[in-house]
Amino acid sequence: MSDAVKSMEDKLKKGERVERFHLDLDSLGPGEKRHLQELMSAHGPGQGKIMLLPIDQGLEHGPSDFFVNPPAADLEFQLSLALEAGFSGVACHIGLAERHFRKYAGRVPLVLKLNGKTNIAPEDRPFSPLDASVEEAVRLGADAVGYTLYVGSPQEAEDIAQFTRVRQEARRLGMPVIMWAYPRGPHVEARGGGRDSLAMVDYAARLANELGATLCKVNLPRPPRGGSYDAQGPFQDYNALAGLSETDALRLVVRSAGRTGVLVSGGSRLDDQELLDKARLCLEAGVDGLIFGRNIWQRKYEDALRLSREIRAMMQKTG
Amino acid sequence: MSDAVKSMEDKLKKGERVERFHLDLDSLGPGEKRHLQELMSAHGPGQGKIMLLPIDQGLEHGPSDFFVNPPAADLEFQLSLALEAGFSGVACHIGLAERHFRKYAGRVPLVLKLNGKTNIAPEDRPFSPLDASVEEAVRLGADAVGYTLYVGSPQEAEDIAQFTRVRQEARRLGMPVIMWAYPRGPHVEARGGGRDSLAMVDYAARLANELGATLCKVNLPRPPRGGSYDAQGPFQDYNALAGLSETDALRLVVRSAGRTGVLVSGGSRLDDQELLDKARLCLEAGVDGLIFGRNIWQRKYEDALRLSREIRAMMQKTG
Amino acid sequence: MSDAVKSMEDKLKKGERVERFHLDLDSLGPGEKRHLQELMSAHGPGQGKIMLLPIDQGLEHGPSDFFVNPPAADLEFQLSLALEAGFSGVACHIGLAERHFRKYAGRVPLVLKLNGKTNIAPEDRPFSPLDASVEEAVRLGADAVGYTLYVGSPQEAEDIAQFTRVRQEARRLGMPVIMWAYPRGPHVEARGGGRDSLAMVDYAARLANELGATLCKVNLPRPPRGGSYDAQGPFQDYNALAGLSETDALRLVVRSAGRTGVLVSGGSRLDDQELLDKARLCLEAGVDGLIFGRNIWQRKYEDALRLSREIRAMMQKTG
Amino acid sequence: MSDAVKSMEDKLKKGERVERFHLDLDSLGPGEKRHLQELMSAHGPGQGKIMLLPIDQGLEHGPSDFFVNPPAADLEFQLSLALEAGFSGVACHIGLAERHFRKYAGRVPLVLKLNGKTNIAPEDRPFSPLDASVEEAVRLGADAVGYTLYVGSPQEAEDIAQFTRVRQEARRLGMPVIMWAYPRGPHVEARGGGRDSLAMVDYAARLANELGATLCKVNLPRPPRGGSYDAQGPFQDYNALAGLSETDALRLVVRSAGRTGVLVSGGSRLDDQELLDKARLCLEAGVDGLIFGRNIWQRKYEDALRLSREIRAMMQKTG
Amino acid sequence: MSDAVKSMEDKLKKGERVERFHLDLDSLGPGEKRHLQELMSAHGPGQGKIMLLPIDQGLEHGPSDFFVNPPAADLEFQLSLALEAGFSGVACHIGLAERHFRKYAGRVPLVLKLNGKTNIAPEDRPFSPLDASVEEAVRLGADAVGYTLYVGSPQEAEDIAQFTRVRQEARRLGMPVIMWAYPRGPHVEARGGGRDSLAMVDYAARLANELGATLCKVNLPRPPRGGSYDAQGPFQDYNALAGLSETDALRLVVRSAGRTGVLVSGGSRLDDQELLDKARLCLEAGVDGLIFGRNIWQRKYEDALRLSREIRAMMQKTG
Repeated sequence: MSDAVKSMEDKLKKGERVERFHLDLDSLGPGEKRHLQELMSAHGPGQGKIMLLPIDQGLEHGPSDFFVNPPAADLEFQLSLALEAGFSGVACHIGLAERHFRKYAGRVPLVLKLNGKTNIAPEDRPFSPLDASVEEAVRLGADAVGYTLYVGSPQEAEDIAQFTRVRQEARRLGMPVIMWAYPRGPHVEARGGGRDSLAMVDYAARLANELGATLCKVNLPRPPRGGSYDAQGPFQDYNALAGLSETDALRLVVRSAGRTGVLVSGGSRLDDQELLDKARLCLEAGVDGLIFGRNIWQRKYEDALRLSREIRAMMQKTG
Repeated sequence: MSDAVKSMEDKLKKGERVERFHLDLDSLGPGEKRHLQELMSAHGPGQGKIMLLPIDQGLEHGPSDFFVNPPAADLEFQLSLALEAGFSGVACHIGLAERHFRKYAGRVPLVLKLNGKTNIAPEDRPFSPLDASVEEAVRLGADAVGYTLYVGSPQEAEDIAQFTRVRQEARRLGMPVIMWAYPRGPHVEARGGGRDSLAMVDYAARLANELGATLCKVNLPRPPRGGSYDAQGPFQDYNALAGLSETDALRLVVRSAGRTGVLVSGGSRLDDQELLDKARLCLEAGVDGLIFGRNIWQRKYEDALRLSREIRAMMQKTG
Repeated sequence: MSDAVKSMEDKLKKGERVERFHLDLDSLGPGEKRHLQELMSAHGPGQGKIMLLPIDQGLEHGPSDFFVNPPAADLEFQLSLALEAGFSGVACHIGLAERHFRKYAGRVPLVLKLNGKTNIAPEDRPFSPLDASVEEAVRLGADAVGYTLYVGSPQEAEDIAQFTRVRQEARRLGMPVIMWAYPRGPHVEARGGGRDSLAMVDYAARLANELGATLCKVNLPRPPRGGSYDAQGPFQDYNALAGLSETDALRLVVRSAGRTGVLVSGGSRLDDQELLDKARLCLEAGVDGLIFGRNIWQRKYEDALRLSREIRAMMQKTG
Repeated sequence: MSDAVKSMEDKLKKGERVERFHLDLDSLGPGEKRHLQELMSAHGPGQGKIMLLPIDQGLEHGPSDFFVNPPAADLEFQLSLALEAGFSGVACHIGLAERHFRKYAGRVPLVLKLNGKTNIAPEDRPFSPLDASVEEAVRLGADAVGYTLYVGSPQEAEDIAQFTRVRQEARRLGMPVIMWAYPRGPHVEARGGGRDSLAMVDYAARLANELGATLCKVNLPRPPRGGSYDAQGPFQDYNALAGLSETDALRLVVRSAGRTGVLVSGGSRLDDQELLDKARLCLEAGVDGLIFGRNIWQRKYEDALRLSREIRAMMQKTG
Repeated sequence: MSDAVKSMEDKLKKGERVERFHLDLDSLGPGEKRHLQELMSAHGPGQGKIMLLPIDQGLEHGPSDFFVNPPAADLEFQLSLALEAGFSGVACHIGLAERHFRKYAGRVPLVLKLNGKTNIAPEDRPFSPLDASVEEAVRLGADAVGYTLYVGSPQEAEDIAQFTRVRQEARRLGMPVIMWAYPRGPHVEARGGGRDSLAMVDYAARLANELGATLCKVNLPRPPRGGSYDAQGPFQDYNALAGLSETDALRLVVRSAGRTGVLVSGGSRLDDQELLDKARLCLEAGVDGLIFGRNIWQRKYEDALRLSREIRAMMQKTG
């Protein structure tokens, strides 16, 4: 088998794309397709690319994420930025959506995040309970719902079951589902090389694909070094990919997502050039969109606006 | 990031309010708004301020809370006090509400507390099960429901899920939801600086905001001292706020609650002057109301009446 | 606070009743009131007093409870005794009720016990699952349902939730709910002074009151001795009540039950005089009824009949 | 109390039956009675006696139970035997019933076993999940359903709750319920004297009675020896019954089952004479039927047929 | 009993089949039968034999299963192969089925796999949650559903309960159910001789039979060596079968499956001759079909096509 891996590795190292995988609109129902077109054409950079502004960190990390730029604690900051910079939409929880979206209805698409948790407990059994329903998303005029699934968590079974109920409700109501596909928990650290390791991010993308997410949100994968994975363990084959570039690692992930679209997270804060480089890398790897949060709204409004426009322009060129 | 924190800290220390956050009635449905006006205008101090009298301690702490003032064990004490002193309403459980409220219907608004527990078990997995439904609150003529959510508890996921079912039912029936937003449990102590630490109370307020509580009830936060939080932990940024005044700490919390209104608990018993000082501090910090229980009804009826009227007058001046 | 406790203690020691609490029929719905009148007037001693004969010990303790008086294993024993001695009703589980009550329908009221368990497992997580529904009680012509709630159990949350579903169904169908309010489990022993300690029985009565039980069944509380409770623990205030008489301790419990009526259990077997003394003590403390089981049916039929009639006469005098 | 126990012990030792307990058809609904008459009169030995052939051991023990007589792995073996030997019916799970019963419909009554499990896991938390419903039993033309309840298991609460849902559904559809009343698990061993100890089997019979089983299936109880039970434990009173004969021990159990009928299991394999002796003992003790499985179908067809006819004849004489 | 085992062992060693067991179409409902005929006659090798191509390994093992043959990550590979080589159908999860099957509808039958999990967590409590429903299978035009049940897992009870809900829904909608009957977890290793041991695979087949699976998928069992099983344990009788051939071991399993059809898994990769030998062995043992996945699609398209045709031809000869 190592020969075959080597051959794929060779192709990937040479930047040659083995197959073309991407979001396939024609496999979707009419409602789901119509909503996606709001995100892919009517708003955002267009060209089928999606540029989302997520603002769920107040729940996931706590309010100290806003210390660096206090005005960002009020959703008005993100909504007016999304409107002015031309984002595809804003992703947030029901509490914020209900209070702020009326004013922006029809102008900034809403991705209603349906589950979440605090980070007070250590991550030994990560699981995010539902705090809203797909029907509530429909009532609020949302164009997609978001769901965090902790791949590999000791509570993975409950999570897949809960996701499935959301996916079924979303199909019934013609609503796209974006899976925040996050490897997490002690087994991911002990056996999987860590939450951002290529094996884990790659697995998360395939899971989103097999489970029927319309789009998935993943972190940029960290390419393996020699011996990153236990030579007897289930992910040993990734050791043979040591030396892969970041772009090729992400290409592998896009490929594993199949007909499920891929959005890449921004993660914690980078400087301007690093962020633009990251965006370029993602687009070169063939992703369907970017979902940068703290890297945008932890900047002052003008800086955030300027940088968002640069990224949008880059997406329009790649589209 | 420490510069940015310092700048916010500077503004807060100077008493300058970065943004104005408050309960936003226009984002609510008509039923929810109508009920809130009972609490904010038709009863209580008016001026949009809410002054609630909670009497759920018999369940939460046991009957010894009444030893200091035995007549308070009978809800008649609180109801006639609320009527005479002009409270916005009384918060209690279904057992008491069903037996006592008929006589006060239309004269003292009811906040039906929907979940609770005893304190016999140690608080290693705090969670309060439902003991009544939103429909029962409607049947009893209540103007709001109360729900205790133990933020950071090992059972936080079950708690968010249960709260969400209550919130959805409340939205369906036009009923405001007051979240008793209480950080609690071993992780809150080990990682969060304790149940009343600023980081925890601040997080609780943001959670109430993200999850769509109409109002939240929080404890007065304890400002950080240097090194209150683990320098590698998720709440390290609060260390930079060491030296913050109690008022500014509460301002931060009000801000994190966003468009969710904030009520402050009274806690265990203070003397008259301390209680009035606490009320003043809360009002200066911009809260939407006070919910003092034991500090009122653990006093003799005449003392409780006099003190309640002083607080009410203070709220009318600040409104 | 210790002064206030001392004052209440003084009043209680002098036998002075601080307030008058009792079952309040006017706060009940018409169905619930009608059923209670079967137990309080149409059958039993009358005068608003309830005298129940419970026979669920075969499930709770096993059949060896009948060794001392083998005929009592057949419900015919209890039913003919209840009819002849003039009890308010018989409390038992569905299996017995379905087979035996047809013959006594309209002559001996039925209290259908809805949950139970064996005592084979040690009591580390006490919880009694439902074995029948309120609807089945209605179908069998019952005049009340019984529910055991283990106050302070590690499964208290599941128990309150299950009780609440029963209470809601009972309200919907106009059926009184009698809560067997039993402090139980390791926390009750470690922190609460034991299952029959005053602090625990007092708490159980208040919980029945807050949760909306129509009546509660409690054990006779054991008054505190000095240092019965941990001086730092949640029940320290009960230490100040050391030296309270048994009657006054029970008065305190009746008071904590508020508008929820109080029935006292018989417990394990006493001799005739002890039992009559216990009954007298309970009536002096103002309880609404007695629910003596083993102390009645572990006696030969004639002895049980004679003793029951003596207790009934005593209740008629006190009513 | 020891005098009373002694008196009962004396009576039992003398073979004198204290009371007459048995299945009471007149307390049943018309559907339930009609189905029982199929088992008690229309098929089997008649005289109100039930003779069932259970074949659920392939699930409970695995296929090696058939090694000794391979043809018995096919339900045809049991069905033609039941028809030819005149059994009251065959008890099996849905998978076998659906494939084989069409051919025997109306000729061999079906008892559909509704729950089961493998024996791969050790029995530390025994619990059998449902694998079919009462409605499916109705659809298949069954005359009773079977349910295994592990009395005293750490999962006893879930088991009672699940049984109750089955019993309620069975009542609604007029279907008799046979409880496999099996003491099982670590507490049964540690405190109860073991799964076949008299105290445990006696308790199981009473539980079936209290919970409303139509019939119960129990193992032959093992009479106590001196000190079988902890002198401080809940079952100490059984020590006084040391020396009881097997027949009298079973009489005690029949008595505890009250109006719930009693069927006795065959257990692991005995030789012909032992089996006939066991059957005789059971009938003398007053049971309502026998449910011998492996002792029948682990024999060659001819042997099984002959032995079944001998037992049937014995039942007809005792009926 | 050892004589009887010896006699069966003798017969099995001589290749003599004790009884004839197989899938019995006449015991099925019309819908279930119609769907099976798609798999057994209209497609695949015919002759009542089923040849399925499973592609759920991306979820169960992760995307590295495709490293050896990257094009196989896209379901187009399997679908065009299934069409060209004449498979009975393709088994996959909802995400893949929804995106790819429209093009092949009516040409390649779909077996919708309804549950799954990742292999990131160690297998201490294996359980696969549902990710789709039987109704969704109907909507997608599937001809069967697949369900993985981990026999012997500490979560076996939840698994049987979940399977039962699927089976009931499938019966209601006339859909065949294929059980991936997999012994798994710590008890299987500690007491059962390991996941592929004869005792475990044999037990899994019987469980599928008792629980009403239409077909089951099992691994090829590993015949016992002397002392494979604990001489005191529940599977000791299998020790007497030491020396059994692989074919006879599988015959035993087919026999335990009774009227439930048996499909054999391919497992991890074999060379061409080994795979053909395995197929032949299975057919000789009387299985109803083969379900080889990685052994097919981990080969290059042409190799996979050639080998699939060889296996199909072999099945047609044996049918």
